[in-house]
Amino acid sequence: MADEIDLATLAFDDRGLVPVAVQDAGDGRVLMVAWADAEAVRATLRTGYAHFHSRSRNSLWKKGETSGHVMAVTEVLVDCDADTLLYKVRPAGPACHTGQDTCFFRVLGTDGRIS
Amino acid sequence: MADEIDLATLAFDDRGLVPVAVQDAGDGRVLMVAWADAEAVRATLRTGYAHFHSRSRNSLWKKGETSGHVMAVTEVLVDCDADTLLYKVRPAGPACHTGQDTCFFRVLGTDGRIS
Repeated sequence: MADEIDLATLAFDDRGLVPVAVQDAGDGRVLMVAWADAEAVRATLRTGYAHFHSRSRNSLWKKGETSGHVMAVTEVLVDCDADTLLYKVRPAGPACHTGQDTCFFRVLGTDGRIS
Repeated sequence: MADEIDLATLAFDDRGLVPVAVQDAGDGRVLMVAWADAEAVRATLRTGYAHFHSRSRNSLWKKGETSGHVMAVTEVLVDCDADTLLYKVRPAGPACHTGQDTCFFRVLGTDGRIS
């Protein structure tokens, strides 16, 4: 059973979360960084679609659930400390709620200003 | 003065940190995810080299300070919520303390096992 997927090797933080970087498997762009708990990681592994933990709603969040801009996950990578994940994905639409392809569409200048 | 760089537009968390995804500006690989506080962001903007906040040492951490594997930062991007950064870098050596080019050298299988 999917609920029995043992994620004991992942180092969740004191809130039970790990940060997840999300990268477009096609063009390599970094699309977003979000958070996952064990439930979200299991749902991602089970369904093949990117799931996260919404800290604002404190609930499981399937990316694109309402917008339709789901993300098919081609690979889940784990970092050396097992405390961060990298989802490689094929997005069905813009990653950002603003409509931009990636959430990282602004630059922080050397003066500290965002443009 | 660099110390006066105003980062008021960044949404640091309750620990004063933002996660930072680090991407190789050349080949697009995601190399690591770390944390930065305002001091680390300012040091990065001022010097052009990737700085982070070491949570274990609770201090400013210039990546490669001891190994020599520094990262020249070509661009600092900010996400839509201004609570995550993306450093695009040209690394002088392996990003990972294990000697791997990237910290994301392991795969999480659908069985939850790391390989």
